Amino acid sequence: MKTLIDLNADAGESFGRWKLGDDAALLPQVSSVNVACGWHAGDPATMRHSVELAVANGVALGAHPGFPDLAGFGRRAMALSPSDAADTCLYQYGALRGFADEAGARIAHVKPHGALYGLTLRDPDVATAIAASITKADPTLLLVLLAGPTAERVLADGFPVAREAFADLDYDDNGHIIIEPVPEAKDPEACAQQAIDVLNGRVTSVNGTTIEVDADTICLHGDRPNSVEIARAVRARFAQHGVSTAAMHEVVAARGR
Amino acid sequence: MKTLIDLNADAGESFGRWKLGDDAALLPQVSSVNVACGWHAGDPATMRHSVELAVANGVALGAHPGFPDLAGFGRRAMALSPSDAADTCLYQYGALRGFADEAGARIAHVKPHGALYGLTLRDPDVATAIAASITKADPTLLLVLLAGPTAERVLADGFPVAREAFADLDYDDNGHIIIEPVPEAKDPEACAQQAIDVLNGRVTSVNGTTIEVDADTICLHGDRPNSVEIARAVRARFAQHGVSTAAMHEVVAARGR
Amino acid sequence: MKTLIDLNADAGESFGRWKLGDDAALLPQVSSVNVACGWHAGDPATMRHSVELAVANGVALGAHPGFPDLAGFGRRAMALSPSDAADTCLYQYGALRGFADEAGARIAHVKPHGALYGLTLRDPDVATAIAASITKADPTLLLVLLAGPTAERVLADGFPVAREAFADLDYDDNGHIIIEPVPEAKDPEACAQQAIDVLNGRVTSVNGTTIEVDADTICLHGDRPNSVEIARAVRARFAQHGVSTAAMHEVVAARGR
Amino acid sequence: MKTLIDLNADAGESFGRWKLGDDAALLPQVSSVNVACGWHAGDPATMRHSVELAVANGVALGAHPGFPDLAGFGRRAMALSPSDAADTCLYQYGALRGFADEAGARIAHVKPHGALYGLTLRDPDVATAIAASITKADPTLLLVLLAGPTAERVLADGFPVAREAFADLDYDDNGHIIIEPVPEAKDPEACAQQAIDVLNGRVTSVNGTTIEVDADTICLHGDRPNSVEIARAVRARFAQHGVSTAAMHEVVAARGR
Repeated sequence: MKTLIDLNADAGESFGRWKLGDDAALLPQVSSVNVACGWHAGDPATMRHSVELAVANGVALGAHPGFPDLAGFGRRAMALSPSDAADTCLYQYGALRGFADEAGARIAHVKPHGALYGLTLRDPDVATAIAASITKADPTLLLVLLAGPTAERVLADGFPVAREAFADLDYDDNGHIIIEPVPEAKDPEACAQQAIDVLNGRVTSVNGTTIEVDADTICLHGDRPNSVEIARAVRARFAQHGVSTAAMHEVVAARGR
Repeated sequence: MKTLIDLNADAGESFGRWKLGDDAALLPQVSSVNVACGWHAGDPATMRHSVELAVANGVALGAHPGFPDLAGFGRRAMALSPSDAADTCLYQYGALRGFADEAGARIAHVKPHGALYGLTLRDPDVATAIAASITKADPTLLLVLLAGPTAERVLADGFPVAREAFADLDYDDNGHIIIEPVPEAKDPEACAQQAIDVLNGRVTSVNGTTIEVDADTICLHGDRPNSVEIARAVRARFAQHGVSTAAMHEVVAARGR
Repeated sequence: MKTLIDLNADAGESFGRWKLGDDAALLPQVSSVNVACGWHAGDPATMRHSVELAVANGVALGAHPGFPDLAGFGRRAMALSPSDAADTCLYQYGALRGFADEAGARIAHVKPHGALYGLTLRDPDVATAIAASITKADPTLLLVLLAGPTAERVLADGFPVAREAFADLDYDDNGHIIIEPVPEAKDPEACAQQAIDVLNGRVTSVNGTTIEVDADTICLHGDRPNSVEIARAVRARFAQHGVSTAAMHEVVAARGR
Repeated sequence: MKTLIDLNADAGESFGRWKLGDDAALLPQVSSVNVACGWHAGDPATMRHSVELAVANGVALGAHPGFPDLAGFGRRAMALSPSDAADTCLYQYGALRGFADEAGARIAHVKPHGALYGLTLRDPDVATAIAASITKADPTLLLVLLAGPTAERVLADGFPVAREAFADLDYDDNGHIIIEPVPEAKDPEACAQQAIDVLNGRVTSVNGTTIEVDADTICLHGDRPNSVEIARAVRARFAQHGVSTAAMHEVVAARGR
């Protein structure tokens, strides 16, 4: 069983007049945060605030770029070319970089959001194009990809990758996550158990199939109604099992990469 | 008469399917370029291309942030608070920074576009908030402001500023520029003469009033139909008068700042 | 004291993933509803739902067009020309018309939102251009304007107008309303008293000045946290004073226009 | 050989500062026009102008709704649900309706644009949902679909459909059109020949396969550089063969539907 893991959360998903998530309560529970960058959520004032919150909580800061689709919250697939997908990530990473630089923080990772994350699984050229583009901009940036064949391939190509598993999403028999358009509350103890399963190297699909998982970081969704409660349950279970959390860079280093 | 000046042009003002300006012809004529960052013009692919073009032509690269108003091309005033205006600039500067970092280029200056440029003249707190925000992100960034009282005040406050004059825009009696919604072709020789007037420290308003101008950089608009012809006329006149051009950082350094 | 008045509420102000207001609870309390049309709030699915809700509650349906500014919720002023402002309203009115036609409902009125409403007070040509444009599209459409000189002038020009007063906003000494960027909860009884004041033909400004008001409709804001409670307090007071509510068309007809 | 056909063109594809196409020259060549409605192209001022142009040229006016993707010009596929796709069309149809009503014109048809048109071919529920939604709003509206199995099925379900073929696009062996991201100039005589082929009930795919086509209307793309020249070539060939053109409603009526 792994005893070191990163816990990451999506945050900064408000937009102007509209508020979403309780980032102030969620961030103390995680070691990395992925901040929305304006295309699917996250206006500039929210981004500034999210960066300040990350700094105040001492969590690693990441960019969370999504499709240009506010109405769909970036959860509707779009057929972007690899080049367009890379530009999409680079633009939004850079935009967050402005606020990070102003706050004296650094961006540690880039995690595509929603259907753009899904596109990295369906189109291998997209994952490679994004990795090539962001690591050219900053060679230390980790690209967060679903733990599985795509992540292993991009890693083998020499790019810095953090392999991600999910405590609060179901998996299908192919090892793909099943993304809900609008997340509902979930049983915190079941999520905590799935986090422990990940540390043991496997999760169970909705059909009962065992999926092998070798992960560096586990995600919790900030827009799930009881996300804070889930985070607390996961951390309590980690304490019981002697599992430590650290930012994904440290976990990746500890894994010898 | 000043014999050293920067010549800057707005570029990268296409958007997706829509093309505007002839940047490939214009950039060889200038020493600095201001690249649109997506809010009033400039999709990510255009931004990437514009950065490559700046690098290929050896001109200083600047961000050209505008209001979030594609339909109005950033030329309709919006009542942004100083904080919103600063975030607007920081976001777009950062977005361009992504492409600059990927290309191994650096961003030398930030020049607000259109009605956002106008807002820096009408609301002194806006100019200060933008200067404070971008120089906190990168202390070497020059903020481009209209040569005049606002620019002198922000300079006196200790921020790096490049003071700008215009060869291809009319001035009113207050020394403010008169922005056309859609630029028309202008007489290249008249623009060239106005550039020489700027170097002599004065321009003449539309009503014949003399406006004193102390400028580090002169702007040419890339979306004017005959912008390339105007640029060539200006450069020819500069050659006649022994005027050299250099990127605005070098001009500012030569001015002893 | 007037004993017949319309009570209108802004609704449909959610956008995609983000929910705002409790329209299902608010609509039974009012006689007219103004539905956001996509530019400052209100994605198409929300618009469809809002139209259905209006029909189900038997309230008069109106379009609530705003500036193209999702991040600012249409509450930041934009310098639109009269022609642009009219096109802005016509586009959004039409968009809602699609859903109204599908539901077999008709649109009874158009009420500009937020800073666009404010622009009708500052630029008389804007109010006239909007009135001319929408009544050319449908001569029965009422344009909702702040009860006061602008509304009276547009009425005198022969356009159908509903004159509006506010129960939940403060007035300045010029009789203009003071728009909060983000509405806070207000004392329901104070709002109810202000509604009664309106029926008596006057409101008191924040400085104690008496403002004469001749109104056809009174607005309640759907995005105020306790908007439903305020609506109930207003209706209770109406019941005490024998005041009836009716859709603004009926009120305007009863006023002899 | 058919001797009556509609000739339709996409138009109104400018956006604010950016101009595209030569609608004033193209519209006299066609009998129907499809006007962009703001989501992939076509700001409100352009829409107003396009409606006036349609009226002035006596061509049938149609709405041309696209995906919410200005940067991609609506030519990048998006995974909209049938309900979202229907709302997308209804919203944009309605928006154009505002301008049509103001001009005293009526909207005769709705033709999905670009990748949304493609989605009607890949997801049969999308075609049905759009047809059901727009004909509920106005039972006389024709939905323009690619001549082929989907169009025949929606027709068989009782919805008004205009079956479309293309003079300026290639077909694959499945009878699907091959959409170019950015249309290039094409040989006008080859396009004219393909229009005649359509009237003869068949086109030839890029691989030489014969595709049977039973069409009511033939499309020409307004954003192709030589679209006006192509239109003239097609009309000249029609004159040689005694082919008449009429708005798609008249063609459909003449076909006995």
